[in-house]
Amino acid sequence: MLNSVFVIVPIAAVLALSFAYYFYRQMMKSSEGTEKMQRIAQHVRTGAGAYLRQQYKVVIVVFLIITAIFAYLAYGLGVQNQWVPFAFLTGGFFSGLAGFFGMKAATSASARVANACRSSLNGGLKLAFRSGAVMGLVVVGLVLVDISLWFLILNHFIPDMDGGYKLMTVCAIMVTFGMGASTQALFARVGGGIYTKAADVGADLVGKVEANIPEDDPRNPATIADNVGDNVGDVAGMGADLFESFAASILASALLGAAAFMDMGDIQLNGVLAPMLIAAVGTLLSIVGIFMVRTREGATQKELLRSLNTGVYFSAVLIVIASFFILKYLALPNYVGIWGSIVVGLLAGIGIGQSTEYFTSASYKPTIRIAESSNTGPATVIIAGMGTGLLSTALPLLIVVVAIVLAYFFATGFAFGADTLNMGLYGIGIAAVGMLSTLGITLATDAYGPIADNAGGNAEMSGLGAEVRQRTDALDSLGNTTAATGKGFAIGSAALTALALLASYFEEVRMMFVKILDAPQTLINNVPAIEASFFDFVQHYQIHLMNPTVIAGMFLGVMSAFLFSGLTMNAVGRAAQKMVDEVRRQFRTIKGIMEGTAEPDYARCVEISTKGAQKEMLTPSLLALIIPVLVGLLLGVPGIAGLLMGTITSGFALAIFMANSGGAWDNAKKYVEAGNLGGKGSDAHKATVIGDTVGDPFKDTSGPSLNILIKLMVMASVVTVGVAVTYHIF
Amino acid sequence: MLNSVFVIVPIAAVLALSFAYYFYRQMMKSSEGTEKMQRIAQHVRTGAGAYLRQQYKVVIVVFLIITAIFAYLAYGLGVQNQWVPFAFLTGGFFSGLAGFFGMKAATSASARVANACRSSLNGGLKLAFRSGAVMGLVVVGLVLVDISLWFLILNHFIPDMDGGYKLMTVCAIMVTFGMGASTQALFARVGGGIYTKAADVGADLVGKVEANIPEDDPRNPATIADNVGDNVGDVAGMGADLFESFAASILASALLGAAAFMDMGDIQLNGVLAPMLIAAVGTLLSIVGIFMVRTREGATQKELLRSLNTGVYFSAVLIVIASFFILKYLALPNYVGIWGSIVVGLLAGIGIGQSTEYFTSASYKPTIRIAESSNTGPATVIIAGMGTGLLSTALPLLIVVVAIVLAYFFATGFAFGADTLNMGLYGIGIAAVGMLSTLGITLATDAYGPIADNAGGNAEMSGLGAEVRQRTDALDSLGNTTAATGKGFAIGSAALTALALLASYFEEVRMMFVKILDAPQTLINNVPAIEASFFDFVQHYQIHLMNPTVIAGMFLGVMSAFLFSGLTMNAVGRAAQKMVDEVRRQFRTIKGIMEGTAEPDYARCVEISTKGAQKEMLTPSLLALIIPVLVGLLLGVPGIAGLLMGTITSGFALAIFMANSGGAWDNAKKYVEAGNLGGKGSDAHKATVIGDTVGDPFKDTSGPSLNILIKLMVMASVVTVGVAVTYHIF
Repeated sequence: MLNSVFVIVPIAAVLALSFAYYFYRQMMKSSEGTEKMQRIAQHVRTGAGAYLRQQYKVVIVVFLIITAIFAYLAYGLGVQNQWVPFAFLTGGFFSGLAGFFGMKAATSASARVANACRSSLNGGLKLAFRSGAVMGLVVVGLVLVDISLWFLILNHFIPDMDGGYKLMTVCAIMVTFGMGASTQALFARVGGGIYTKAADVGADLVGKVEANIPEDDPRNPATIADNVGDNVGDVAGMGADLFESFAASILASALLGAAAFMDMGDIQLNGVLAPMLIAAVGTLLSIVGIFMVRTREGATQKELLRSLNTGVYFSAVLIVIASFFILKYLALPNYVGIWGSIVVGLLAGIGIGQSTEYFTSASYKPTIRIAESSNTGPATVIIAGMGTGLLSTALPLLIVVVAIVLAYFFATGFAFGADTLNMGLYGIGIAAVGMLSTLGITLATDAYGPIADNAGGNAEMSGLGAEVRQRTDALDSLGNTTAATGKGFAIGSAALTALALLASYFEEVRMMFVKILDAPQTLINNVPAIEASFFDFVQHYQIHLMNPTVIAGMFLGVMSAFLFSGLTMNAVGRAAQKMVDEVRRQFRTIKGIMEGTAEPDYARCVEISTKGAQKEMLTPSLLALIIPVLVGLLLGVPGIAGLLMGTITSGFALAIFMANSGGAWDNAKKYVEAGNLGGKGSDAHKATVIGDTVGDPFKDTSGPSLNILIKLMVMASVVTVGVAVTYHIF
Repeated sequence: MLNSVFVIVPIAAVLALSFAYYFYRQMMKSSEGTEKMQRIAQHVRTGAGAYLRQQYKVVIVVFLIITAIFAYLAYGLGVQNQWVPFAFLTGGFFSGLAGFFGMKAATSASARVANACRSSLNGGLKLAFRSGAVMGLVVVGLVLVDISLWFLILNHFIPDMDGGYKLMTVCAIMVTFGMGASTQALFARVGGGIYTKAADVGADLVGKVEANIPEDDPRNPATIADNVGDNVGDVAGMGADLFESFAASILASALLGAAAFMDMGDIQLNGVLAPMLIAAVGTLLSIVGIFMVRTREGATQKELLRSLNTGVYFSAVLIVIASFFILKYLALPNYVGIWGSIVVGLLAGIGIGQSTEYFTSASYKPTIRIAESSNTGPATVIIAGMGTGLLSTALPLLIVVVAIVLAYFFATGFAFGADTLNMGLYGIGIAAVGMLSTLGITLATDAYGPIADNAGGNAEMSGLGAEVRQRTDALDSLGNTTAATGKGFAIGSAALTALALLASYFEEVRMMFVKILDAPQTLINNVPAIEASFFDFVQHYQIHLMNPTVIAGMFLGVMSAFLFSGLTMNAVGRAAQKMVDEVRRQFRTIKGIMEGTAEPDYARCVEISTKGAQKEMLTPSLLALIIPVLVGLLLGVPGIAGLLMGTITSGFALAIFMANSGGAWDNAKKYVEAGNLGGKGSDAHKATVIGDTVGDPFKDTSGPSLNILIKLMVMASVVTVGVAVTYHIF
């Protein structure tokens, strides 16, 4: 039954992985510099490896427990679901593998980038960017591998059924593969986020503020942990986050496609293939874009940014063109409209990135105003940063609103009714796929940031010349911009992906009635479930806004987002406190540490961050997994619907608020450090350093963790749909 | 047609106003103390009066514009609506009047309370509390006056109609009277909130931090403005806020009662009367409670609190008993269940207050931990306060969720279906009335806080002895606790009231079809509108969670809450900056100011706060009025439904987060000032002062303003329902 064009998906997967390997080999061939540089890089590598091992141990235990529960549910509820535990496991396995490879490349690259900067800026940029591309390509490659494998396996093993139900079943099972990736991402983001900020805050508070030594100073015992944190949080965490968005947006769209084109024979298969093909072709074109990134020696910050953007935009334009022909070839009804949805998604991603840039870059008013408010001390810096962060949510939210409405109506050809609903939801899903289609290259620009940052750290610690440090600083500063836009992109895609998943939740509910209960004759509003329309389900479940269980669910959803942010925030506070105590202890007890004659005990700090992160990540993570199950048990399907909408909408706003406040504080500090308002050492500087420290857990722990929360809670609801349908109390 | 028992409502109104007048006369009879005390009190009174006049000027212009728009809409859309502009105006007028009287009493009381404290603590407490009671009783009294008048007028003038539509019409018009109160409250809360915190932050930053002089020091030019601010923000703002909640919860419940008991003849009237009678009897019993508040000389903080709580709890218990007999007398079907909803509302109010107390009082772990995190500087104080504030939203949200679900199901007798929906929504409305039934006395405890605070300021500035200052400090510290629980109560009641209003929005939509379009034959899903069930409307408008306009509306609702908070936050930042500049200028240019030989120019600071507040309140306020109209125009009824749910849920969480973070920072500072962790002047103290300053706009501007936002946006949607129904684009 498979369309031969599907072969593009595994081909893209293999090519992405091959190029990742090629970039990796190329990078490994270049020199790691002096003996000291190698030693520092080795410290970071060991720390990062130790952390990852520790985290995977915890994750494996959680995975085994969840798999057992799935196996039990599959057995208990019967039929087809025996595939779910395996799909779940492979999702988690491939996501973990991507994190491992990405971090291996990043930690191997930093000293080499510093070394390359000793001779040329262009060499440094190219090396850093291509090392980042390893992460980008491994992520998209492994997602496509997993999807290809499962699609082939399930197509082979699931028996044929009437009325397009075979493809529905295949896609419904495949969505649960996202759950594995979600769970892996949760621990990577939350654990990594806590790790990196505990180390960073601890290093800054004692080193910069109390001992008055510069950032990345080798005398600071927490400095290695801080560098490990950049890799653990910003490389592995970000990678796992987007692995999940990429996988989930494709799989949710496939399921929505199967539902939208249910009665249309071969067209149904094409609707399912469309998101996969767009993702695959996007991957191929991302590789092309990666090869376009280069710069000239002595390039300005602006030119550096342009060179990165050239690659991204070039890929994006090619994807816009290619996706039109893909959809045309697949002969989907209203394919021009669906193509419009893809373009909307792509533009929304760029728009959110631009708005983040505006609100967090020191080239624009908002951040400069925050810096200026330092003339009345730290309190007004915090107030201004909070105000700006809250304000800055408006534009991204408007963009998402416009994207949702347009993606929906483009796909339905501006029709609005019960019969076109599935088409509209397919449009929203495919917009998410469109937004993420450039992931191969955008993730490369993201992962580039911490690599450049670590290269700077390595240069500082190894005492390389001022010229080298200047070059790594130029790369690092560029990395801050890409990190900010990357965060906007990650949360924007999370919101659209979560909505697509939420739509597929309702399809899973329908499947429950049709197949899992093995009773096609179940009546929904007096029609057999198999023929019941979406509205029949809405009416059956009263999924409207005046149903008290929907309202209660919404309040609980908002609660989840706020509670989760509070927990991760406090987790950083506690873990940082331990780090502060340890650094103070080492300064006090290790003689010669401040003179540079004795080496601090870096390993102890790495260990403290690792343990702190592992301990602190459990409560918020388990909460994210348990709340949807509990709400399903208590309030049933309408409660879940409210819960998820509450979490998605408020979690999105909170995440943007936190990321932008944090980014703006960071750059306000850099603005002062660049010599404005009194420069380094002035009262204004001290005030903005406090702002930056407050912003650390905002932008790198709580904010990004919310991306995962909003996707995971939908995912957890999707895979435990049977609980809400069968056992609910109200 | 009126039931004679209705007479209790105007009687309660007259009694409340009489007792308010009695307490006011009693207070005015006591001495205002020394000449210096009188002069300072006069400064504050003049400043507050000037501000109020200025604010009312702006409000009158806004009111005239809105009235003109209503008049046009009433003319354009025909029928019955000619009453709306007048109802709107009286609501605004009475709310303004309540603010005026409340503030007059509060500003006259402060010096007298300070003077009473010269001889006894008990005398001071009684005087301060009974002066606060003036505000409480004027608010509830004027609400009941307005409701009585309009109910009698409309009952007389609206012609009889079939099937209980007369009462529906009366109630639907009366709900719009809440819009006037809403608009008044918006400007009072936002303007007052900006005023008070601009003055407070400005006074603290220059006085406490830069010039190192104590709080309320007469040498600080902003100190009078700061004291004016307490009255303007915490008395007038809080009063207008709760005036609106009280009015809106009664009116929304009345409309929901008219809908729920539509076909039941006389019972319908009783359903409408029930919320009015409960509010009236609650008012009478609040007066009884007020007389119970007294304390013994040398009472501890705990005993003082207990004496206030005794009054509140005594009233609450009496109301629980009385309301049972009221409902029994009214012979409502399932009256025991409805009574359960009232009890749920009352308990929820107390529960939210208790949870606020736990998270913000220095007697409990969370605030102590924030204080302790000062050992690593201000950044960790801010992080800990943010974390605690975010966490602290969980309990109030859970309480509201439980209250919603229980109030609904108690009222339906645990039935769940289309036919009992109106009963359930009536239950939610009546729970809000139950929560607010003790308002006469709880508002007295709220208004007591700023009176005690100002008495302390007066004592400090007049140089009264240490013993007096100790007594006023005891009263003030108690005021901080009541202010925190009062804020929790205000936001909790705002959420329930907003939900009740949202439910009445849907009734207004139905009325649009039945009457305003003057076409009972309009078909909704093939049935005449007059017979159409709630579900017919849900299906007609697709008010379900997968409708893209509902989803878009929800994102916009969340956006509104975040944007509004950001705007008010930045407004305080800007206004405070001006105050800082002015105070610095006076310190620099007025010779002898620091030696106490020259008087600072207090009036200039009052003027700056007044102008700043007036200028800054316009943008956020107009936004709150315009967004619902715009969304209605663009996305129609489903968009509005999503918008309002998004604002209510996320606005509630944001408000709690901000109020609790701010309250906890305030008390963490007081904890250090009490001698812990190094006491006054230590680094820990400086760090917590920064936390307190950040918390000021959180807890006194942005947080409380959100209460108004969530109610006003529903209100604005209710009164412009015709726009969304008739002219929407999508």
